[in-house]
Amino acid sequence: MSPADDWSGRLGYVDDGLDRRSYLRDDPAFLAAETADPAARSCLFAGEAPILRRNSPVEAFMPLVAADGLGASGERIYLGHTASGPRFAASAPATLAEGLRGRSDLMVADLRQLAFDGGVDRAALGLLGVAKSMLSWHARHRFCANCGTMTVVVCGGWKRVCPACAAEHFPRVDPVAIMLVGAGADCLLGRQARFAPGMWSCLAGFIEPGETIEAAVRREVQEEAGVAVGAVRYLGAQPWPFPSSLMIGCRAEALARDIVVDRLELEDARWFSRAEARAMLDRTHPDGLMTPPPPAIAHHLIRAFVDEA
Amino acid sequence: MSPADDWSGRLGYVDDGLDRRSYLRDDPAFLAAETADPAARSCLFAGEAPILRRNSPVEAFMPLVAADGLGASGERIYLGHTASGPRFAASAPATLAEGLRGRSDLMVADLRQLAFDGGVDRAALGLLGVAKSMLSWHARHRFCANCGTMTVVVCGGWKRVCPACAAEHFPRVDPVAIMLVGAGADCLLGRQARFAPGMWSCLAGFIEPGETIEAAVRREVQEEAGVAVGAVRYLGAQPWPFPSSLMIGCRAEALARDIVVDRLELEDARWFSRAEARAMLDRTHPDGLMTPPPPAIAHHLIRAFVDEA
Repeated sequence: MSPADDWSGRLGYVDDGLDRRSYLRDDPAFLAAETADPAARSCLFAGEAPILRRNSPVEAFMPLVAADGLGASGERIYLGHTASGPRFAASAPATLAEGLRGRSDLMVADLRQLAFDGGVDRAALGLLGVAKSMLSWHARHRFCANCGTMTVVVCGGWKRVCPACAAEHFPRVDPVAIMLVGAGADCLLGRQARFAPGMWSCLAGFIEPGETIEAAVRREVQEEAGVAVGAVRYLGAQPWPFPSSLMIGCRAEALARDIVVDRLELEDARWFSRAEARAMLDRTHPDGLMTPPPPAIAHHLIRAFVDEA
Repeated sequence: MSPADDWSGRLGYVDDGLDRRSYLRDDPAFLAAETADPAARSCLFAGEAPILRRNSPVEAFMPLVAADGLGASGERIYLGHTASGPRFAASAPATLAEGLRGRSDLMVADLRQLAFDGGVDRAALGLLGVAKSMLSWHARHRFCANCGTMTVVVCGGWKRVCPACAAEHFPRVDPVAIMLVGAGADCLLGRQARFAPGMWSCLAGFIEPGETIEAAVRREVQEEAGVAVGAVRYLGAQPWPFPSSLMIGCRAEALARDIVVDRLELEDARWFSRAEARAMLDRTHPDGLMTPPPPAIAHHLIRAFVDEA
């Protein structure tokens, strides 16, 4: 069993219960049947905000006509099939959210907050994550990067094709290395200026063309904190829909302890003892310092380090 | 030590010896100094083909003026700094390759073949891999996907910016799950129609938005071979510059043995015993069946399974 198997049930944006049926996406008859299925439901994003219905429980997915009625526009994305039927994603302009805020039957939500406060069930959160990544990609990829022509959506939203040059474009997933760097009994955490006060987390960075996961871990830690890294071990991964990253979580061992912080990337970075990190995970640190909460993979990477002792 | 550490020295397109200096890419003065460095060298691709100089040894990198003299056009990409100085990548139209084939001092090479025949040293092969991924991305991403305007290259080629809508675009890395599926003493290998005769390899597929690595492994094996997978374990990764994938290699355990081949994806798939797989790795199989050679991660995933016994 991989360490990440222990995290399921707590990590956010996973366990979506989705059978993607990717091999059927190019079949218009299949998509039409899924759309016509009485059990079909769609989520709706107004810009970045999921629009939820205040039923009991709160609903992230609604009949397709309900989403259309609320102002869904643009392409409807086929996410796949769940035990409760077909699932789609729809979007509306961000400006729609303002108008919907006044409605007592609706909730204009925040996808990060939903992961932290459990406002929807785990499967719905996972589906909203897939939807958010897909819709964000479509929103920023309406034109052919090869020739500049407006592209056409095919395969239920899983491909855009250029009518001029025939180039095919697929939704993007950006792999990110995120790592808990340890040195003996201490671990290295950093703070970005945009973090909430008192929040410290794992270092992380996009994996570049030509890099292995392990090489990206070493480069990022060297660049951001000036710390050389030896052994690197994969622990688990998490899709992160802001907009569409794949967080690849690793345990790394430092070869030295001196830190030189890259102040463009980080506000600060320093070593924390296991006891201090444990208090930050449990939100009992005397100075109010804390780690990200359990929906984020950083929490589990830090927890795994603390539990090594 | 991760299993992949054993593979270094044999896996291709890694160990590029590159200090990417990514934090300096946005500094024009730094890039100008690197360009003016007498030790600066550039590779040159004519379309997909690296152009090598038949010196002793064969050179994949040449002075910048030499690359320009051979017909380099378009943006010059800054790869980073090596122990031998700054390294760049340049491209020319594919049509240039035809003209250069007649020159006795040059070799119009094939990047896959170079990995297999060792035509350049490991570090040069790694650098050519980075160059290939970057140049392929630029070739297909000259226009803003957000608004269709021609974009401008900045940061030595590591970003394109839209002059109309200010959208920023970064080189793409597509994570791919590649897995050795085992069932007791047997492993599952597949054949794509485009493979060389007798070649069998690991199943693989692109990781989609919203998926973990492990979920992608399970979906791909289910879709392509109809086999349910239980435990999944990460073994190692390889950048694959055709055009810019990150192959994430896993060991997966099948929950059942019945196979239903998706004939759109695979020509065939079947179980092989450890003894048969070993013969295929060693190219001693009586029927001439074989695995991919050591530069490909599939070779090492299969080897790791064979060595489990």
